[in-house]
Parts: sequence; C-alpha cells; structure tokens
Amino acid sequence: MGLHQRIEAAIDRTLAASAVGGPARLGRALSYAVSPGGARIRPTILVSVAQACGDDRPELTDAAAVALELIHCASLVHDDLPCFDDADLRRGKPSVHRAFSEPLAVLTGDALILKAFEVIAMASARVPDRGLMLTAHLAYRTGAPHGICAGQGWESEESIDLSAYHRAKTGALFCAATQMGAIAAGQEPGPWEELGARIGEAFQVADDLRDALCSTEELGKPAGQDAHHGRPSAVAQYGVEGASRRLGDILAGAISSIPSCPGEAALAQMVRAYADRMVPNAERLRRPVPGE
Amino acid sequence: MGLHQRIEAAIDRTLAASAVGGPARLGRALSYAVSPGGARIRPTILVSVAQACGDDRPELTDAAAVALELIHCASLVHDDLPCFDDADLRRGKPSVHRAFSEPLAVLTGDALILKAFEVIAMASARVPDRGLMLTAHLAYRTGAPHGICAGQGWESEESIDLSAYHRAKTGALFCAATQMGAIAAGQEPGPWEELGARIGEAFQVADDLRDALCSTEELGKPAGQDAHHGRPSAVAQYGVEGASRRLGDILAGAISSIPSCPGEAALAQMVRAYADRMVPNAERLRRPVPGE
Repeated sequence: MGLHQRIEAAIDRTLAASAVGGPARLGRALSYAVSPGGARIRPTILVSVAQACGDDRPELTDAAAVALELIHCASLVHDDLPCFDDADLRRGKPSVHRAFSEPLAVLTGDALILKAFEVIAMASARVPDRGLMLTAHLAYRTGAPHGICAGQGWESEESIDLSAYHRAKTGALFCAATQMGAIAAGQEPGPWEELGARIGEAFQVADDLRDALCSTEELGKPAGQDAHHGRPSAVAQYGVEGASRRLGDILAGAISSIPSCPGEAALAQMVRAYADRMVPNAERLRRPVPGE
Repeated sequence: MGLHQRIEAAIDRTLAASAVGGPARLGRALSYAVSPGGARIRPTILVSVAQACGDDRPELTDAAAVALELIHCASLVHDDLPCFDDADLRRGKPSVHRAFSEPLAVLTGDALILKAFEVIAMASARVPDRGLMLTAHLAYRTGAPHGICAGQGWESEESIDLSAYHRAKTGALFCAATQMGAIAAGQEPGPWEELGARIGEAFQVADDLRDALCSTEELGKPAGQDAHHGRPSAVAQYGVEGASRRLGDILAGAISSIPSCPGEAALAQMVRAYADRMVPNAERLRRPVPGE
C-alpha cells in the first residue's frame, strides 16, 4: 500500500467510526471538511519520517498522521469563517460554513480538534509514553502561545512579530509533522525540529507565490488574498523572483538538516519531490504580477 | 487549602504559564474567558470524586480539573458567538467576542480546548496510562458524536433526539467530571458514569428554571433565552412546579448512585450542598412566569 493510500485509509476509518449516533448534519460536515482532501502534505511528512525511523508501531503512526490532518482541516474550516477570511471556496468546493452553516462550521472545527486527540489516545494503549508525547506536541503546535492558533492571533495585534507569526501560523504543523513522526516510531523528537521548521518556511514562501501567481480556479480557493487583506508575505517582501530564489535555498537547507537515520536517503528524495511540486513553474515567474 | 482555592490556584498556574511569548491580545482573551470564573462546578465535582477515591496523584487531579474547566469555558466562548446565542454578556461582563473581537473569540475557544489536552499530557509523565484515559474521556465527552459539540449540533437538526441532545449538551461534561475524577485517582471510571449523568440532568433542569425565573442581572447573562429561541426545556415540558419536583427526584437518585468508596459520605454531602444552591428559592416558584 502506498503512502497516500495508507493515509486515506486511516482517515476513512476514523471518519466512519465517528459518524454513528450523533446529529447527522454535523456528522456530514465533519466528513465534508476532511474528504476529499488536498495533498495531505503534513501526514505524508509524518509517515515518511516515521518510516525513516523504522515505523515499529504503524497503528500509532497512522493515528498521529490522522490527528495531524484533522487539526489542519479544523484550522482551514475556522480560517474560512466570515470573521476571518470569509472564504466561499476551499479545495474547489463551497467552504463548510457555506455548504452547511456558520454554527456547524464552528462546531466542525471544534469536533475535528477533539477527534484528533481521541484518535491518538485510542491508539496508544500499548505505548502510553509515546501517546502522551504525541498529545503534548500536537497541542503545543496547535494552540497558544506557539501554535497555529497563536499564528492567527498575531493577525489581531497592532504590531506583529513577523518571524513568530510565520513560525506559528505555518511552521508549527510542519514541526509537528516531523517530530510526531519520530515520536510515533519511538525516537527523540528534538533532532527533527529543524527539518519541520524549514519545510514550513518553504511551504509559506511557496504559498505566498501561489497566492500571487495562480488564479482562483487553479488554487480551488480565492487567489490574491494576501494583497487584498494587506497581509505580510514573501512576495511583498522580496518580489516574485527573490521569493522564488529564497524557496530554493530553504529547501536545500531542509534536506541537509535531515538527521542520520535508516531511511535518510528516501526522506531526502521525498522532500525533493515536494519541492518540485511546490515551486510554481518557470513560465509563471516571467508573467507580470498585478501590483508589482 | 479548600477545594475552591485549590482549583483557582491550579487554573492560575496554567494561565500564567500560557501567557508568555505569544500574541498579547489572544493571551489576554484566554485569561478573560477563564477568570474570574463562575462556580467552577465541574472541576469541583472532579476533585471531590478524586478525593473520595483517595487522590493519590493530586497533581494529575489538578490537571484534569483545570482541563475540564478550560473545555467548559471554551464552550461558553463559542456558544456566545453571534452565529449561536449572540450573547453580549457572560458572568456579568461582556462576552469574549464583544470585549475582544469575533476572530479572537473563535481562537480563544480553540486555544482553550488545546490547552486542556496539553495540561493533562504535561502532568501524566509518571502515570501515562491514567493520562491517556483522561485524554480519551475528555475528548469523547467534548466532541462528536456524543460530547458537547454534538449537543450543540443537535440544534442544527430538523428533527431533534431530545434525550441525546440533553445527554450530550449538558450531561457529557458532568459525566467527564465524575469519571475523570475517578481516573485521576487510579479508579475505574465505569461505576461513576451514573452520578455524572444524574448531576447533569439536575443541572439542566435547574438551568432551565433559572432561565425562566431569574433576571438578566441575576444571571449575569441574558435571561429568557430558551423561550426566545424556542428551545426545548424542562419548564416548557413540565411547567415550573413540575420541573422543580423533577429536580428533587433526580438529585435524590444522584446521591443514591454514588459508588462505595472511602469518601462516599463527604461526596453525598457535596451533592446535597449543590442541590440547595441549584434550586431557585421557593418564593420564586410562586411568582407568575411570563408565557405560562
């Protein structure tokens, strides 16, 4: 079974087990928010790191990967709400509050966060130490003052700490991905933080580039949002070509930060493959960009 | 140190540790949402049950109590949002979205949920089995399909399962209180479910009575909301006197359901004390009620 299939199967099992007995519309909204998914980048990184470390408890790796993806989906549902991005579209279909309602979108985000922790707890009976460490890391990287909630929170400050903002808003879940992969396989998470942080940085720059260069149709969500909301971005700071060069440098640093482990080479290969998909193609970079 | 002081001290320690390094307004919103609190009923029940069971890991009991209260506060912050109750007041002061903003209220609820799981994970290193069981129970009782998220979710259904609605919306966190108290002290949670369920039922009926009988000023939040939103309530179903009789019956059942344990008598005394505070006074019951 390939990585993608493994992750989708684990997500499907979780959603099926959650659908029984509760209010039906909320149950449907939970599935709608999670599937069909995007590239499942964070759980893919998590499972890849776990495999590079031996993956001796695959059921725990699966649970950690599902939990991380549920948290990511929860953050998208809440970020799309009218009081944040007010986004009508997500992954090419109506956002959850558009398809269901605003109350159900708030509850969907909450319930996905909670399901994430339930999934980890239910899978860790045989290795409770790892389960608790996964829980602590996931909560730390998702909440405040250092997780993605804090990242969004920086947008409500009068004066923004730009580095803390990016580390929390985008970097946190990539650090969670590499470190939770290591924990699930029984390894110390410390040496894996840098890889996550660098992938997160790269992802943020790539996302800024896509937001500036791609159409709403290509993105499956509204384009040009950074400029529209006056948000800080790598394109605003360095221009398109500068941001693109920076992306290459960060990815090279990511690969060289991979800790020594049995699956080191395969992991470097995976990061390179993502890098190729992340960088908008060269033709795009030569197009004039509105506002530049 | 009394029960109330013990709980407040544990909450204060958690909030102080969470305030450093993140966005300042979100940090202030987190404190604002949690302190000064209400009666802290759920953590008080949790600690009381743990004490009745021996309380051999008081630091874990404290963490479980804080976690449960943070979840309760998170649910209040999200329930007050414009898309739900649109409440301007909570505990006699502006609700979080009124005092800060709607984005910060959404984030505050999310961050409080996450902090709850972090607190449990950080306190369970020496008894990881208990920590995981606390995590699983808290997530189950808070999320969907059976927790308080599901309870709110029932309000978005065309046809409501009234018994599942009340069990999930109000009962779930009281079951969490009694069962998590038992788990924190190393006991099996199963025998403690009925006490939680009955206290939850009693609390729901008492809340319905207060909503119908008290003023906005007395409640510290808008009164008459059940009638205003056409929500099902014990007062709508049985009338004021019928609901009041029902409350007495449920509390008697709660006390008789307490499992045999070293602190059984003290626990029964605590439930009786809450019962006296829960029932609106007799004079109120004789006043005519609008709409009856």
